[in-house]
Amino acid sequence: MGSEIAPKESNVDVLIIGAGPAGLMAACWMAHLGVHARIIDKRNTKIVCGQADGLQCRSLEILDALGFADRVWKEANHMIEICMWNPDPATGQLHRSGRIPDTIVGLSRFQQIVLHQGRIERFFLDNIKKYSRGEIEVERGVLPEALEVDEQKVEDDAAYPVTVRLRALSDEEATPAQQLSGSKVPDGLFRSNLVYEDDEEDLLKKSQARAPGEVEVVHAKYVIGCDGARSWTRRALGLELEGEATDFIWGVIDIIPITDFPDIRMRCAIHSANDGSLMVIPRENRMVRLYIQLKEVTPDASGRADRSKITPELIFSAAQKIISPYKIDYEYCDWWTAYQIGQRVSPSFSAHSSRIFLTGDAVHTHSPKAGQGMNISMQDSFNLAWKVGLVVRGICPRTILPTYNDERRQVALELITFDHKFSALFSGRPAKDVMDAEGVSMEEFKQAFLRGNLFASGLSVDYGPSVLVAKPREGGGGQEEFDKRQKLATGLPIGMRFNSFKVLNQACARPWHFQERLRADGRFRVVLFAGNILDAAQKIRVDRWCSQLVAPGSFHLRATPKGDKSDSVVEVLTIHSAKRIETELLRDFPEVLHPFDEHTGWDYNKVFVDEESYHEGFGDAYTKYGVDREKGCVVAVRPDQYVGWIGELEDFEGLQGYFKGCLVLRGED
Amino acid sequence: MGSEIAPKESNVDVLIIGAGPAGLMAACWMAHLGVHARIIDKRNTKIVCGQADGLQCRSLEILDALGFADRVWKEANHMIEICMWNPDPATGQLHRSGRIPDTIVGLSRFQQIVLHQGRIERFFLDNIKKYSRGEIEVERGVLPEALEVDEQKVEDDAAYPVTVRLRALSDEEATPAQQLSGSKVPDGLFRSNLVYEDDEEDLLKKSQARAPGEVEVVHAKYVIGCDGARSWTRRALGLELEGEATDFIWGVIDIIPITDFPDIRMRCAIHSANDGSLMVIPRENRMVRLYIQLKEVTPDASGRADRSKITPELIFSAAQKIISPYKIDYEYCDWWTAYQIGQRVSPSFSAHSSRIFLTGDAVHTHSPKAGQGMNISMQDSFNLAWKVGLVVRGICPRTILPTYNDERRQVALELITFDHKFSALFSGRPAKDVMDAEGVSMEEFKQAFLRGNLFASGLSVDYGPSVLVAKPREGGGGQEEFDKRQKLATGLPIGMRFNSFKVLNQACARPWHFQERLRADGRFRVVLFAGNILDAAQKIRVDRWCSQLVAPGSFHLRATPKGDKSDSVVEVLTIHSAKRIETELLRDFPEVLHPFDEHTGWDYNKVFVDEESYHEGFGDAYTKYGVDREKGCVVAVRPDQYVGWIGELEDFEGLQGYFKGCLVLRGED
Repeated sequence: MGSEIAPKESNVDVLIIGAGPAGLMAACWMAHLGVHARIIDKRNTKIVCGQADGLQCRSLEILDALGFADRVWKEANHMIEICMWNPDPATGQLHRSGRIPDTIVGLSRFQQIVLHQGRIERFFLDNIKKYSRGEIEVERGVLPEALEVDEQKVEDDAAYPVTVRLRALSDEEATPAQQLSGSKVPDGLFRSNLVYEDDEEDLLKKSQARAPGEVEVVHAKYVIGCDGARSWTRRALGLELEGEATDFIWGVIDIIPITDFPDIRMRCAIHSANDGSLMVIPRENRMVRLYIQLKEVTPDASGRADRSKITPELIFSAAQKIISPYKIDYEYCDWWTAYQIGQRVSPSFSAHSSRIFLTGDAVHTHSPKAGQGMNISMQDSFNLAWKVGLVVRGICPRTILPTYNDERRQVALELITFDHKFSALFSGRPAKDVMDAEGVSMEEFKQAFLRGNLFASGLSVDYGPSVLVAKPREGGGGQEEFDKRQKLATGLPIGMRFNSFKVLNQACARPWHFQERLRADGRFRVVLFAGNILDAAQKIRVDRWCSQLVAPGSFHLRATPKGDKSDSVVEVLTIHSAKRIETELLRDFPEVLHPFDEHTGWDYNKVFVDEESYHEGFGDAYTKYGVDREKGCVVAVRPDQYVGWIGELEDFEGLQGYFKGCLVLRGED
Repeated sequence: MGSEIAPKESNVDVLIIGAGPAGLMAACWMAHLGVHARIIDKRNTKIVCGQADGLQCRSLEILDALGFADRVWKEANHMIEICMWNPDPATGQLHRSGRIPDTIVGLSRFQQIVLHQGRIERFFLDNIKKYSRGEIEVERGVLPEALEVDEQKVEDDAAYPVTVRLRALSDEEATPAQQLSGSKVPDGLFRSNLVYEDDEEDLLKKSQARAPGEVEVVHAKYVIGCDGARSWTRRALGLELEGEATDFIWGVIDIIPITDFPDIRMRCAIHSANDGSLMVIPRENRMVRLYIQLKEVTPDASGRADRSKITPELIFSAAQKIISPYKIDYEYCDWWTAYQIGQRVSPSFSAHSSRIFLTGDAVHTHSPKAGQGMNISMQDSFNLAWKVGLVVRGICPRTILPTYNDERRQVALELITFDHKFSALFSGRPAKDVMDAEGVSMEEFKQAFLRGNLFASGLSVDYGPSVLVAKPREGGGGQEEFDKRQKLATGLPIGMRFNSFKVLNQACARPWHFQERLRADGRFRVVLFAGNILDAAQKIRVDRWCSQLVAPGSFHLRATPKGDKSDSVVEVLTIHSAKRIETELLRDFPEVLHPFDEHTGWDYNKVFVDEESYHEGFGDAYTKYGVDREKGCVVAVRPDQYVGWIGELEDFEGLQGYFKGCLVLRGED
């Protein structure tokens, strides 16, 4: 009593602050990489309703690499078509003026879907538990209070230069002040539809393992701040979001609609003549989300809208006006909120020589309508966390870390630009005729939507030159040589994600989307397009390439820690173009392409063939990857599936050079 | 002490004895139907290795209807191709003589896969827990000891005429004497690969909720015996399997092979010249199952082989001889066993006026090589349990119950015939040349395999005439009228399962395999092929049909218990052939096809269109179902997805008659 007890102290490789989608993605990588990490959140429960819900193609590809896109795909509502509604120029009556597919056809093996954030978080938690074997668990009701960095140690791989002081919250402090979901039906008739049985545990407040007020001092090698728009971590670093709010104020409401509007199960963009705009997002469990422009609410002199005036009734009556003469009503409302559109970005996404990082809403905010928020946030962490994890494990040098800020801040800036344009088109009134310059032309709007769809898919991301992306720097020369390399695989732009087509396993003929073999396990990959392996000259080229791969000094040997399997850092996958039934795995392919293990025999999962399958059609992968069927090429792929390098089979030195830049190579050159 | 305590007594609607795949399937139906059921098993743990593993197309369709085929599909090994190996007639050396696809192309949306029984049981347990909301749980370590039927009460719907006496076992009694899995590597190096984290709990013996020896007397409306080849229930009924054992003795071993045999990841049928045959079944987790003919082990005078002489070494050395000159070895062995091929069937599958039923191995045994065992067993229960459940719920009359014995005993007899032929071809030595009449011709073998594949898919099952299948009885006339009805949908043979093609949801354009809408929820369905709904004359036909459906006296109203939703017993699903974007759900389709609910609005999940999708191609459903695109037809579908009746839109009386035969209709005719 009265005497101060020294707080508990501990070391951790990676401390993650915030357990929303961005934080959980970071923790998920750590689980897959086997890195010692902790994740804290000040709230004592995860999200159960509302919040972000749209998932782009790229996010689904990523969740598939982690192992749970199937769960999302099964429960989600799939959005197939976008319908545009606006006043008929002749009658002034609301009419359907156009339709476009929601996802560009052929872009990805996934299409855009909707599932609420709480389910995504549930799947993350299950996946983290599975891959970390229960070692990483969200520590809830824990608040960071102070952050210090020992600048002397930031370049020391073995050091823990970041110190964070944590405090355990009481139950009252840790309960989020969420808007409660409610229903016009007082007995909560539909509630049971909307909570999943494997989520029920999340409705129970976890009793704290620690006493409220208990303090712990954590020494971390790295800290990742994923703590949202009002990020404590960002503020502790002295960084402020830069940008501006607009005058546009929107409401959001999740309801089970009772309506005669024909397209309520389509994604709709509705522009009324004078009452503002409405976006319809059909969801899972019969629900529909409405984004509703609130023309009657305007910002005050300070530029901020008075939120206290906004009620679900106000939001919904605005929706009813916009959708008129169609009728819409509801009994069940799951969630609602309102926001003022603003686009802001942090001046930096990392600090203290890449010892502290910020991801997600902590470094960018924008309007939610385009369904980008959760996606970009998760993708920030997906870009970052493998780099941190591989540096911690001694696989990669610290020099890869600045690529996070370079790559993702660029994406955030593009997002802001996109959102700015998109929101303006959305919030403007429709043009009355071609002479109405202030109004939004519906044709222009449709075209913007079509163009926006590529951006919104997450598949237009193109990372710039770095140690991880072998591209010429602007004005730095080498463009000609780069173009030559890029031409070897025109369908695999360097800096973009590795596209996916179906190929067959050589040993068992099973069709795989090739991306399914690019799992998020922290390995770099070399994809050997072996070409026509049955051609004698080509076979010699492949044999020679393989012999360089296993020669002393090869990155493949030198990157692998002693005692580890030869494919533990860089996995070599082969796609050939000869006829499968004329080709034999053990006869025609050098051992390094299907390594032998004395305990388990040959590896049958590394060699694939571009051929028609019995049951799932023809991927035509060589054509779609733009690779010569005879001569092939070599492609280096990052652990996050982005193309890092392309070259000819003869250019082993080039490949070696790429990996010298991004892997720790042991022993002599 | 000394005084007898009266045993606990209880009532239950359905008592299921045995918690293998057959018993779990029965329990699963009860969970989906909301029926009060209990399931007991004398073992105190579920299977964790070995046992049955092949899953046919039809089984996957069924598991999908229950909601978990995706989990099986994801974890399983997919078998794509069958390779035949036998001595080269020229050199005498083993060579690959042919290849065929493992599943007939186009037969089903699923293909044959392999996943061990323990995982299937795991998924069943999860599904039962979810749908019964935790009410149905396997009671392990419980043995049935006595069974009595009160014959006076068997026709009384409200009675509990079957009495079963149960006894709780001690842990020693309840631990199965399974062959232990073992490895040449003493530290169990690979063990961790082979146990799934969500299965770990099953490795722990459950501590009994009851004291060993505790007795309970259960009064049941119905009893389903799923207690395996040595079924206690069958013996209690005095039924004996009929049939014979052959001289063929086979061993089975699950290993991770170390081999230079080229097709070890294919399903292979290998006939050696003189050393017997071998079947290779590639499995999940790098494992391979070998079925090995043991020519050196022969039955004694009693016709039975001495099992004690059979060791894994003996089995494996036989495999090595057969596969020579290729080498095969292993470090890790997961499981092994041996069996003598025999085909036996019970004279009846039910007893006591359909109050007690037997399913699965309890009523048929055969060789495991064709991968039929677990499938046919699950399908027995899938055929039976909805009937029992709907009778218990008062939806169907007891007169539907005898169809179980009629339908499934026929399938078992066909299985025995198939297995007999298949095993003989497998166990015979390959013919030396065309004059070698005693040998098995490899061409004949390949043809048999091709034919066998249809049977083995589970999709050739064709149930005979009954109150559930509107077919003419042999010699009973009506063939001509039947043929006329069948011609309305040539791709939907009455008595066979409803085939699946992709259609789009009218309201949201999402593509569905139509079978995905035929969920195992206990509902009968009427599929209205509405034809070209935009044609005025056709619209009149559809409107007239719909008005009959909602007219007083219609089965649709009279089958539904008061207060239940109108689609709770029979759901009407529509597939039309007009252009989707010219058609409006609310404008063009009568209300009964998309019912309105005052709390949740219109139902958007009942009307589909046969049209090309943006991302998933064209199902061409009308063509493939063999239905006229203009005029359509009406198809009645049983809760287990089998086609029960087909007729024209004008033949409402025929449809009414079908449901009169199999539903309890309330009120006046």
